Amino acid sequence: VHPIYAAMGETVFEAMSALCRDGSRINLGQGFPDDNGPPELRAAAARALEQRSNQYPPMAGVPELRAALADFYRRHQGLDLAPDSYVVTSGATEALTAAILAVVRPGDEVLLFAPTYDLYAPMVRRAGAIPVFVRLSPPLWRYERAQIEAAITPRTAAMIVNDPLNPTGSVASAEELADLAALCAAHDLVAICDEVWEGVRFDGIGHRSLLDQTGMAGRTIKIGSAGKLFGLTGWKLGWLCASPELAGVLGRVHQFLTFTTMPATQYAVAEGLARDDVLSRQHAGWARTRTAMLRLLDEAGFAVLPAPATWFTCVDLAASGIALDDAAFSRRAVHEGGVATIPLSAFSVDGELTGVVRLCHCKDESVLAEGVRRLAAVR
Amino acid sequence: VHPIYAAMGETVFEAMSALCRDGSRINLGQGFPDDNGPPELRAAAARALEQRSNQYPPMAGVPELRAALADFYRRHQGLDLAPDSYVVTSGATEALTAAILAVVRPGDEVLLFAPTYDLYAPMVRRAGAIPVFVRLSPPLWRYERAQIEAAITPRTAAMIVNDPLNPTGSVASAEELADLAALCAAHDLVAICDEVWEGVRFDGIGHRSLLDQTGMAGRTIKIGSAGKLFGLTGWKLGWLCASPELAGVLGRVHQFLTFTTMPATQYAVAEGLARDDVLSRQHAGWARTRTAMLRLLDEAGFAVLPAPATWFTCVDLAASGIALDDAAFSRRAVHEGGVATIPLSAFSVDGELTGVVRLCHCKDESVLAEGVRRLAAVR
Ligand SMILES: CSCCC(=O)C(=O)O
Ligand SMILES: CSCCC(=O)C(=O)O
Repeated sequence: VHPIYAAMGETVFEAMSALCRDGSRINLGQGFPDDNGPPELRAAAARALEQRSNQYPPMAGVPELRAALADFYRRHQGLDLAPDSYVVTSGATEALTAAILAVVRPGDEVLLFAPTYDLYAPMVRRAGAIPVFVRLSPPLWRYERAQIEAAITPRTAAMIVNDPLNPTGSVASAEELADLAALCAAHDLVAICDEVWEGVRFDGIGHRSLLDQTGMAGRTIKIGSAGKLFGLTGWKLGWLCASPELAGVLGRVHQFLTFTTMPATQYAVAEGLARDDVLSRQHAGWARTRTAMLRLLDEAGFAVLPAPATWFTCVDLAASGIALDDAAFSRRAVHEGGVATIPLSAFSVDGELTGVVRLCHCKDESVLAEGVRRLAAVR
Repeated sequence: VHPIYAAMGETVFEAMSALCRDGSRINLGQGFPDDNGPPELRAAAARALEQRSNQYPPMAGVPELRAALADFYRRHQGLDLAPDSYVVTSGATEALTAAILAVVRPGDEVLLFAPTYDLYAPMVRRAGAIPVFVRLSPPLWRYERAQIEAAITPRTAAMIVNDPLNPTGSVASAEELADLAALCAAHDLVAICDEVWEGVRFDGIGHRSLLDQTGMAGRTIKIGSAGKLFGLTGWKLGWLCASPELAGVLGRVHQFLTFTTMPATQYAVAEGLARDDVLSRQHAGWARTRTAMLRLLDEAGFAVLPAPATWFTCVDLAASGIALDDAAFSRRAVHEGGVATIPLSAFSVDGELTGVVRLCHCKDESVLAEGVRRLAAVR
């Protein structure tokens, strides 16, 4: 057995959700809505199961979906890319791993920013490369150009940028994006951009991709997710977006990871990407529950960090008058309070982020109210 | 870009199918039925889209499916394994790659048998290991114990055994399975068993897994596919089966490849695995078209190799009086005759298998008839 997996635990998301599956606990841990996703998309998938092919679709995705992706990003983010810039994957997880396996050669270094999503470092290592961490600091989690540049060496091949950032819910500013682009160009780095939260922003600012910065078109792999965009996390449909040349290489990796993705979900997502009404209804619902959550936490005396994006809000334990570290608080919350949360140390490099706990707020308001009540009781 | 992918072409299956998608050609290349799969399973998936959760299911699969797998293999193959021996994946492709990434360490050697499915060698290399090929020979493609043992070194960590074997449609005998098991035990090898064709046998013999041989329980990873079992190749639902300890490790790999698989298809496949009527109706249909194909080929003067399993039959070009090599014949067939086939050299190590072409026979009899007519015209 490869030593990386021998030493690895189950993801914290799965471990927390497993504790909630018998219905005895409230799950504010793993990021997913507690509704069942847009009925329009579920009906479209059911229709496709009946009326379209259930055999192998094209390896890179059905033409309808690749065209819909090109159209969606043209309308929403001003990206002028052809359908063959898009490769459909079985979720953004597959897309991330495909990008890492494609880009990274043994002995390369890859810049990761901490807090860091739990997939990045192990997959960089399994690909034969060395993760090099740059720490972002609360409360704003800013990208500091000088600090990043100091971490770049002649062996640095790529950086992985998660914007908006999970778990913090923060968003890179226009200036930070320009800095990251300048660094990639100056040091000939590929940017793997995990932008699965691009559609979940509450700051009224349209998402801009690092791909769209000067000089980035040929060196960026942008990753998106239908699960996050529509609130259908079980559908496991994502995509890679890159120059047609790079997209061709990513297709080679994809063909030996999952080969292709179920056509019924592809057709349904293609329909959904054209439905601005569905997208904005989903977004409005998340904005509503987020506002409720911020009010509930405030009323209960919890101090939160600014989080203009994602389904998450982060509680600052010390500022909330809680003397426990994040792991202890999360443990107590789930086992005594009956509410699952995610401690931010699960995203940190060597346990240095110990004062923050992440809560998922895309839940019915009554669930949020009961969850916060329980959290207040264990504090 | 990693050199493995830079040098890699599109899979021959995708390349051939791409030439057929405009409807102008007959596709006897990539293995998939030309019907749309069992209506019962499509209806069950449509129902689950409406009635069950569309959010993240458990990472290793929904309990209903893991229990159904345990029950299915108990009834059909006498395997006495608990549900936690099974990890559901997004297709057998993901299962294969997960097994390779899990088991293989940099510098290890992995035994592959040629003809060899096109994923194995590149993924073994990308995992950091070295493929060592053992050649099987037509017409019976037998595993020769002495030849295999001679290829084993102290660095050999695993063997990948595809039984029934794609592209040949051959099946290992009880004696060959016992030999492979003895070699694994004697040399402490893990067996990665690609058994996706276990349900597509026409020799009247029930499939026996290498997993079931003496001493293999703790060292075997058995891989199956709902796409092949039910003729729903687009569903991309597969599974890994191993000792609970090894299955735990495979789950760690899976969590960073796709994390989980769409619940609607999982619930539908769980229902399907209990439906012996559906399984045997599918099987009977494939048996019927296979018989038709063998008759059509015989009538047209094509000589075929024995192929007791899979959706494929292999034409021996020389014995059929065709002077072309397989690549030339396949090229001519698709471009001049309008019928896609798979040349066996695509599965060979260094192009040494040049006299055989693979045809997929799970197609409507009228399609097979027209396909064979066209093949006869280009011969
Ligand atoms: C793939 S499980 C993790 C889901 C998620 O994005 C999160 O909860 O952070
Ligand atoms: C994953 S595409 C290949 C399908 C198949 O098993 C075959 O045609 O051999």
